[in-house]
Amino acid sequence: MRDFSQSHEWLSINTATVRRQWRLDRIVEECARRGIRAISPWRDQVAAVGLQAVAARLRDTDTVLSGYCRGGFFPAAEATGLRAALDDNRRALDEACTLGAPCLVLVVGSLPGALDGNPAYHDLARARAEVRDGIAATLEHARQANMPLAIEPLHPMQAAERACVNTLEQALDLCDELDPARSGALGVAVDLYHVWWDPKLAQQIARAGRERLLALHVCDWLTPTRDLLNDRGMMGDGVIEIRKIRGWMEDAGYAGFAEVEIFSEHWWSRPGDEVLDTCIARHRSAV
Amino acid sequence: MRDFSQSHEWLSINTATVRRQWRLDRIVEECARRGIRAISPWRDQVAAVGLQAVAARLRDTDTVLSGYCRGGFFPAAEATGLRAALDDNRRALDEACTLGAPCLVLVVGSLPGALDGNPAYHDLARARAEVRDGIAATLEHARQANMPLAIEPLHPMQAAERACVNTLEQALDLCDELDPARSGALGVAVDLYHVWWDPKLAQQIARAGRERLLALHVCDWLTPTRDLLNDRGMMGDGVIEIRKIRGWMEDAGYAGFAEVEIFSEHWWSRPGDEVLDTCIARHRSAV
Repeated sequence: MRDFSQSHEWLSINTATVRRQWRLDRIVEECARRGIRAISPWRDQVAAVGLQAVAARLRDTDTVLSGYCRGGFFPAAEATGLRAALDDNRRALDEACTLGAPCLVLVVGSLPGALDGNPAYHDLARARAEVRDGIAATLEHARQANMPLAIEPLHPMQAAERACVNTLEQALDLCDELDPARSGALGVAVDLYHVWWDPKLAQQIARAGRERLLALHVCDWLTPTRDLLNDRGMMGDGVIEIRKIRGWMEDAGYAGFAEVEIFSEHWWSRPGDEVLDTCIARHRSAV
Repeated sequence: MRDFSQSHEWLSINTATVRRQWRLDRIVEECARRGIRAISPWRDQVAAVGLQAVAARLRDTDTVLSGYCRGGFFPAAEATGLRAALDDNRRALDEACTLGAPCLVLVVGSLPGALDGNPAYHDLARARAEVRDGIAATLEHARQANMPLAIEPLHPMQAAERACVNTLEQALDLCDELDPARSGALGVAVDLYHVWWDPKLAQQIARAGRERLLALHVCDWLTPTRDLLNDRGMMGDGVIEIRKIRGWMEDAGYAGFAEVEIFSEHWWSRPGDEVLDTCIARHRSAV
């Protein structure tokens, strides 16, 4: 298992972590001057600066990506909605290629309209079938673009609105169904916030293996957690056994970045410098 | 599948649903005069009225129990804490017997101290081992008392504080380990709020079978959900496919009550009459 205590060579910052403090070009700059060599940006942040400008900024600073956020949100109430989702995923793939991402992260979606409090239907099995079909369709383009897709299982508390793929086992079942050859074109993003509680986590990480483990996201689970979305903790401030689980990932062959992704009203209210410096310190002490 | 649309013969009220409005003796009375023939009371509510007084009230009104809440909370930071937990579970079993409950529901506990925001340790596997041992010890007494234990898997968002058994599969694995003969002494309480999202739910309900399915709890999952604990919805107000899942339960042999358990600041703020009348209406229309 890699020793992170002396360097932050394997730290990546998911740019949502400081999205309220800085625009993406500034985030790239602030990371680079701290020796953080990887980020994982969100599409809206890229669009705000401009795709080519971001690509140039990454080149100028020798910054690489640990992932690109995000594709997905496949289920739709109508056929036009599904076509729009597939088109949008194709654009996300193109952007990921332009930025040199190692994978496009998929938050697969769930009951259409639920995010606005008004689900078009309640049939979770239907949403799951639409997700499978959406990933299958997107996978064809992904193979052509040589851009792996990383299915991110989301915490069950997000099952209605954001993702109906809620365990690593379920994500891996999809991978086995759609990419039985383990080609590397389809895998998973393991975000510890979403999966830390899972009694089958160690077993499923081992099952995933190197070809399927495309990303590792870290933060922490606070007790109490006051909000279902935006109360994630800094590594070391909660109960997730981050180092233990990272060990399982590395035993299975994962050798990439530990990407810090913190949605938090608290951390969004702190100065960006403090957030990044804390990420570095905690990467060394708690990841 | 039983038709609930014309009667509420199979409705039970978990008394936490109106705990802020009424004491338990009043709850029993209000249920009885509405033809609700079953309740599932909490130990603190029983203690507030007195065990024998509650037992008498149940007899007077021909009210039966669909369960007794609750035993569990096994993990402890110290040996004295474990002994206290086991003693307390034995008392809960005695009370359940006095009240004629069909089962004692177990909320098994997790990281000791996490409920107060100060977990004594972060080792989830240790908590799970302590839970297994605690259930095993309690099961001996439960067999002597002829009182089944119903393990309630809790939603993963409760995994740190309240229960480290978080899927039906995990609960059934425990049942198979501790009661391989399927004697009826150990089973599960299936609360749809906790398990509705599970991609393996249908499969695991079928696996459980009649001997293991000791209770069915219903409410609904709201979109958005504003609080991890006290924002449960009334049946029909959320996204849970209650009738579909009840069908799976009945296909597997379950023929007991549908117990309404709603922790909700909203419903606790409404008059108790309104809450019970709504439970009856929604039991018929949405369960």
